[in-house]
Formats: sequence, structure tokens, C-alpha cells
Amino acid sequence: MIILKLGGSVITKKEATEPTADYENLDRIAKEIGESSCQKLIIIHGAGSYGHPFAKKYGIGDTSENREDLQRKKRGFCIIQDSVKTLNRIVCEHLRKYGILAVSLQPSSFIITRNTRIYYGNLNLIKKYLYLRFVPVLYGDVVLDLEESIKMAVLSGDQITRYLGEHLKPEKVILGSDVNGIYTKNPKKYPDAQLIDHVSSLDDLEFIEGATTADVTGGMGGKLLELIKLADLGIESEILNAAKPDLIKRALQGERIGTVIKVKEKKIKG
Amino acid sequence: MIILKLGGSVITKKEATEPTADYENLDRIAKEIGESSCQKLIIIHGAGSYGHPFAKKYGIGDTSENREDLQRKKRGFCIIQDSVKTLNRIVCEHLRKYGILAVSLQPSSFIITRNTRIYYGNLNLIKKYLYLRFVPVLYGDVVLDLEESIKMAVLSGDQITRYLGEHLKPEKVILGSDVNGIYTKNPKKYPDAQLIDHVSSLDDLEFIEGATTADVTGGMGGKLLELIKLADLGIESEILNAAKPDLIKRALQGERIGTVIKVKEKKIKG
Repeated sequence: MIILKLGGSVITKKEATEPTADYENLDRIAKEIGESSCQKLIIIHGAGSYGHPFAKKYGIGDTSENREDLQRKKRGFCIIQDSVKTLNRIVCEHLRKYGILAVSLQPSSFIITRNTRIYYGNLNLIKKYLYLRFVPVLYGDVVLDLEESIKMAVLSGDQITRYLGEHLKPEKVILGSDVNGIYTKNPKKYPDAQLIDHVSSLDDLEFIEGATTADVTGGMGGKLLELIKLADLGIESEILNAAKPDLIKRALQGERIGTVIKVKEKKIKG
Repeated sequence: MIILKLGGSVITKKEATEPTADYENLDRIAKEIGESSCQKLIIIHGAGSYGHPFAKKYGIGDTSENREDLQRKKRGFCIIQDSVKTLNRIVCEHLRKYGILAVSLQPSSFIITRNTRIYYGNLNLIKKYLYLRFVPVLYGDVVLDLEESIKMAVLSGDQITRYLGEHLKPEKVILGSDVNGIYTKNPKKYPDAQLIDHVSSLDDLEFIEGATTADVTGGMGGKLLELIKLADLGIESEILNAAKPDLIKRALQGERIGTVIKVKEKKIKG
């Protein structure tokens, strides 16, 4: 089984002020997934412009200042839940178009966090969908949080990816991003930035500038942290450029593309 | 806490060949719910023309004849899941418009059936949403079924209503239908049909013609059976005409309207 994460920056126009899907990318990627003939697959997608601007606006995951602020956050929660569901419908529609048996699974219906980290999420149903050869499609969502001071949290697709990876032990995790992988420097700024083939520990990251770029759910640094934790558990992952044609398809068919995150030598516990 | 079930025949144009919402009813009902100031509420809605025609077409819940038929049913499952979700989005949008903190809960994400009856569904999250004064909104959906021969099932809003009623012990259950309640005869056929004030047991039903009218998820007979089971557990319910203005609002404010289903005398076990 493979877990494929599709970044919000690939399937939406992330810089758009209004929620806007990138239909061109979505259609091409759905086609590639269909053509890959990958039999056992979970897809997780980010929220992009359907989630981040709202999450920021309403401060979901922050402590409420007062009763009024809490009420406002709750209204925001409802709006965001609806918005990311809209994107999920668009994604599933494209997947179905290419014969993929996409079944949507709404994180806010079965996952709860504690201090913004997943505390509980029953995965039996996902296993059952997989067993029947459906393709479960999850996504970045807002969820309830057990921490009394925040009550609600933004649950990123990356955290879901890590959680499912940890509990379902996939053959590999593919992270479809809008960059070719992990670079020695931010490639958007420095033309001499070099793509890193392998990352095997947190130490490899220290010199990476991009690792500190943050968005609401953590930039590339956050993604890498989740994947390194998976590597520690023996689960290999790769970050590749899903905006480039054919890479998703080739990765689903077994090729190693972009930056591979994998523990090289001794397994580090902790 | 009150559980309000909105029938698919009220919020959609049930006879339409294409999924069609009844926006007029939806808007008015959402407004009534908002005005009722009911603080603790769960809403469950039917699928109407967003679900029934597809469920019938693909034979979800029937035994698959062969591999091909199973594949077809699985495609149907994905299509129906998406269609009822679309209706749910429309419902939640209207609720939010009138200040209701509607949070969607997707049944196929956390409920599984066995022989078409709910076998498992973790309700902790619903309790948590209620505690935070959100209004959970569930709906008729397709779900996985543990029975190997059928694998998938149609889960009606009525069955969800009964399940939540049984486990969450609401003050009362309100069933918003397109008829005034239970009649001695089918009121659409017989002008001398009389509305029944109270139903207290299955025996009361024997002479009711409407009780045998079946749709995919069981007609009024199926609804009544679910509600009588609730009555046996001490939970009162009422069937009223949600297509008529103000009845939902008045019922949410405590009035008894339509047909009340309630065990009168001794409590029958079993």
C-alpha cells in the first residue's frame, strides 16, 4: 500500500485570495494516478487556498481571548470545514473521472487532536475500504482538540500522512509538492541551490534554509519532520514535484524521484 | 438535547429525476431552527433525490451477482457518497446563514453496518461537538457493511436518528416529514383519513395503510418502527409536517405537534 500526499500548493492556486482549485494539475494528476494502476492506495490532500487563509483569519488553534472570540472561532470552524470539503469534492470528482474508486473520509468526523497533535482516530474503516480496493481520500481539515484552552485545531494533511504512515505501515509515502525535493538552499532564491538525494536525519536539515519557512501548517521543515519520524519507524518516503508531468505516475510505479527520506544506517530511537 | 430529522421529501424535490434541493423549504426551515433558539441540537437529514435514485440504480445493499457487478456497485458507492455530501453542504450552508454552528459529520467516515443495521459508530466526537454547542449535522449516506455478501449498505437518516436517539438519550426526537403525521389511512388517497394523535405500540399500526408504503429506506412504516423502538426506551418522538411554516420552530420550542410516538402505559422490553 502506498500513501500519496498531494500538496495544497499543487492542487490549488495557493496565492489566490479566494479558494481556487488548480484544475489543470488536478486533472493531470488524477489521470496519472489512474494510469499508474497502483492497486492499494490512500490519497491525502492539503487545503491550499481552501483552508489556509481562513485558518489564519479565524485563528483556529489559538487560545480564545474571550467568549466572543471563541464564538467567532467556532463560526470560522464551520466555514473552514465546509470550504475544505468543497475542495475534497473537486478532488474526488477528478479521481472518479479516471476510474479511481475514491471514497472521501472526513477527518473532522473521526479524528480528534490534543494540543494540535492527533490523539485519536479509528483507522479500522480505512483498512476496510482499502481491503475492498477503494481509495480512501483524506484531507487537511479543522478538528476538535482536547486541550481546553484551544478547543479546535487545524489538522494538516502532512500530520494525517504521518499518522496513517505510522499506523498502517505503507510500502512508501509519496509527497507531491511544488518543488523538486529538498534543496541545500531555497531554490526560489538561490540559483546555486542543490537538490538533496537523501535525507536520513534531523542533522541533515540544519543547513537547509527552506526548513525554516513556515506556513500555517508548517512549511517544508514541518513536512520533513513528519517524514523523518516515519523514516525512524522504517517507512521510506519521497518528496517530489507533482507540478511536473509524469513524476507522480512514475513514483507510484516504483521509481525513486526527488528527495528520498530514509534512515541510512543505524535506527535511532526516541 | 433534541434530535431533529429532516426528511428528504421536504428538503429535496423527491420526484425529480436529477438531484434537486428544495431551496425554499430549506431556507425557511433553517430560519425556523435559528429562531427557535434551541441550544442543544443534532440535525439529521435524508437524501431524497440526491440518494434514492442512485441507490436503486446501483443496487447498493443487494448481493453482487459477479465481480463486474460488484465493481459497478463500488463505482455507485463513490457517486452516491459524493451526491449526498453535496446535499449536506447545501443544508449546512443554509443553517450557517441563520447563525447555526452547523458541523457536518459524514456517516461513511465513522459508521459501519452489519446486514444493513448500524454495527459500530463512535459517538464521542458528536458528544464533544454538542458540548461545545456546535450543531452536528448527519445525513443518509452509503456505508460499508460487514456482511460479506453485500459489502455496502444504504444507511437511512431514520436509522441514524434511531441509533443516536438510543445512545444519546435526547429529550425528544422530531421527525420533519411532508405529511401532518400518521393517519388512519393514506391521506393522499382518502379524504376521510384521520390524523392519529398518539401511537404507542406496533399494534396501533396494523390498520394503517401508509405503514406498508415502502421507499428505498422504508416509507412511513420504516420510520414508525424506528420511533416505536425509541419509545420503548422511553424516548418520545413526534412526526410533523415540516413543509408547513412554523411547525418545526414550535416543536423545537416544546410544543407537541402532529403524531406523538410515546409508550403510554407499561414499558415493554425486548
